[in-house]
Amino acid sequence: MEDNIKLFHGDGGKYTSMLINELFYKYFNNEILLRGFDSSVFHVNKEKLAFTTDSFVVKPLFFSGGDIGKLSVCGTINDLAVSGARPLYLSAGFIIEEGFSYIDLEKIVRSMGETCKETGAMIITGDTKVVEKGSADGLFINTAGIGVIENNYAEKEIKQGDHIIITGSIAEHGTAIMLERYKIKVKGDFQSDCSPVSNIIRSLSRYYNGIKLMKDPTRGGVATALNEISALAGKGIKIYEDSLPIRKEVIALCNILGIDPLYLASEGRVILVVDPCMSQDILECIRSLENGKDSKIIGNFINNNGPIVYLETEIGGKRILNTLETQMLPRIC
Amino acid sequence: MEDNIKLFHGDGGKYTSMLINELFYKYFNNEILLRGFDSSVFHVNKEKLAFTTDSFVVKPLFFSGGDIGKLSVCGTINDLAVSGARPLYLSAGFIIEEGFSYIDLEKIVRSMGETCKETGAMIITGDTKVVEKGSADGLFINTAGIGVIENNYAEKEIKQGDHIIITGSIAEHGTAIMLERYKIKVKGDFQSDCSPVSNIIRSLSRYYNGIKLMKDPTRGGVATALNEISALAGKGIKIYEDSLPIRKEVIALCNILGIDPLYLASEGRVILVVDPCMSQDILECIRSLENGKDSKIIGNFINNNGPIVYLETEIGGKRILNTLETQMLPRIC
Repeated sequence: MEDNIKLFHGDGGKYTSMLINELFYKYFNNEILLRGFDSSVFHVNKEKLAFTTDSFVVKPLFFSGGDIGKLSVCGTINDLAVSGARPLYLSAGFIIEEGFSYIDLEKIVRSMGETCKETGAMIITGDTKVVEKGSADGLFINTAGIGVIENNYAEKEIKQGDHIIITGSIAEHGTAIMLERYKIKVKGDFQSDCSPVSNIIRSLSRYYNGIKLMKDPTRGGVATALNEISALAGKGIKIYEDSLPIRKEVIALCNILGIDPLYLASEGRVILVVDPCMSQDILECIRSLENGKDSKIIGNFINNNGPIVYLETEIGGKRILNTLETQMLPRIC
Repeated sequence: MEDNIKLFHGDGGKYTSMLINELFYKYFNNEILLRGFDSSVFHVNKEKLAFTTDSFVVKPLFFSGGDIGKLSVCGTINDLAVSGARPLYLSAGFIIEEGFSYIDLEKIVRSMGETCKETGAMIITGDTKVVEKGSADGLFINTAGIGVIENNYAEKEIKQGDHIIITGSIAEHGTAIMLERYKIKVKGDFQSDCSPVSNIIRSLSRYYNGIKLMKDPTRGGVATALNEISALAGKGIKIYEDSLPIRKEVIALCNILGIDPLYLASEGRVILVVDPCMSQDILECIRSLENGKDSKIIGNFINNNGPIVYLETEIGGKRILNTLETQMLPRIC
């Protein structure tokens, strides 16, 4: 382990995993945490609940398609939703730099309230700290969330042939942040996809017996999320480049900047691993929703000797997609 | 409202309340939040649960008697405990400044793990963000916690004559932080009281029908906590100066620095409002525990026309204790 913390320890990739495994799991050693899911599932007597948290340090605070407030609510709601939980209650902890604009704070808080309303979740507890000018960068928000697992959703064993679905076009949050932060002027509509996915997952409840795993491809993008899924399953994944939903503008921009969109964050998409017998029904159900209309089957689990993620390119070539190695874009969320 | 955020908006006093009432309650408007307790109590079917959060920005990170890790676990566990909840599960969100010492991080994480073990609570979900050097001051930690309300504890109507108990000597966290931060060299043992209080509250379970309200006097100290209790009850409080447990060293130091210890934070004490018929039994029960041995009855509710907190001095004078008006010592927790 390095002798001090580097930016890449927070990028959601390989070094974040190292920190989690070597430090947090060592001292917070318990069975629920060690499962390593987006939300932790626990029981209180007969109730099956999910609990999750995220701190948000996104830069800039306002971006096309959202702001840190909307993001902080979506992030936690989506982590609950992909565990099969209906988001119920959220906490909100604010760390504010002295001198921060009251008007901006109000915009952000309003946007948290509106996003909650959209999903039915409620912020029921909170905390505010103010630190001296120069001791924080504007505003950081932590949210934690509690949800109730409904219709007895549970993750299931993944098998060869299982299909992989994504609910919409990828890399849009990452590109929106990049453009805003580096003040890159390009034509085209580059909005973050930042939005709640709980409506999609709720609408799929009748197919829960065919859904084996759900994950939202945030930090580290689709490639990192697929690597995590592949590691959990202990099996390889093949993804077809020509089936990946990516908007043309996003591809063009990533080409210019030399960035792989497969590693850029989404904040309103879900990857689902589904039983191939049910994948068409699930796909149609997702596509019937406004925020699922670009949903696609992007690949499947393959037979091999362990976790690996391949991309099959349009011309039939094969490329291994590794977990994100180092920081491409810090403070994406 | 000010047009930008000042340090005093985060001190737990009058301006923090204004921010909560004018901003957060406006946009996060729901019945559970508006109750305004340390933890929010909610139901999932038959289960009665409590949920709370705190962000910790204490400066310095290490102090006599604890560190930000221990504090971040105690703070949330104690907020759950004073709601009558047994702390079950915690989340931990880390915001780390690039370059932060790995060894220090390990000490802090270890101390979180140890404090959890002491109380039986478990950290089951977490998040790590790293921001560029200069964008945060070392390390901030958010914890949120879930507990289950046992033995049907509930807050009750407070009446004239009800007794007020404190579980131990006051202002010790505040003085420990002050000495450490300003490198004041004085003789004597100045340790923070930072510790879990859940054992005290659990041991009182057979007296829950006589306990009307519990609160931990953190930011803003005993005076601010009493003002909050008085406002909730809509009745006045009288406190007797000579019954307040304060260590001699703490009084001497506060005299030298011209600071009122009634406004300095404790992080391991509870204020209880109890039925006078049961106050002796409750006091003895608390005193039988190591961290309750200095417990005292410090005052009672009086008959008057609304919320107010008086201190009766040793020579029989009366002084009104207002809510903390402005920042005495920022970043106490």
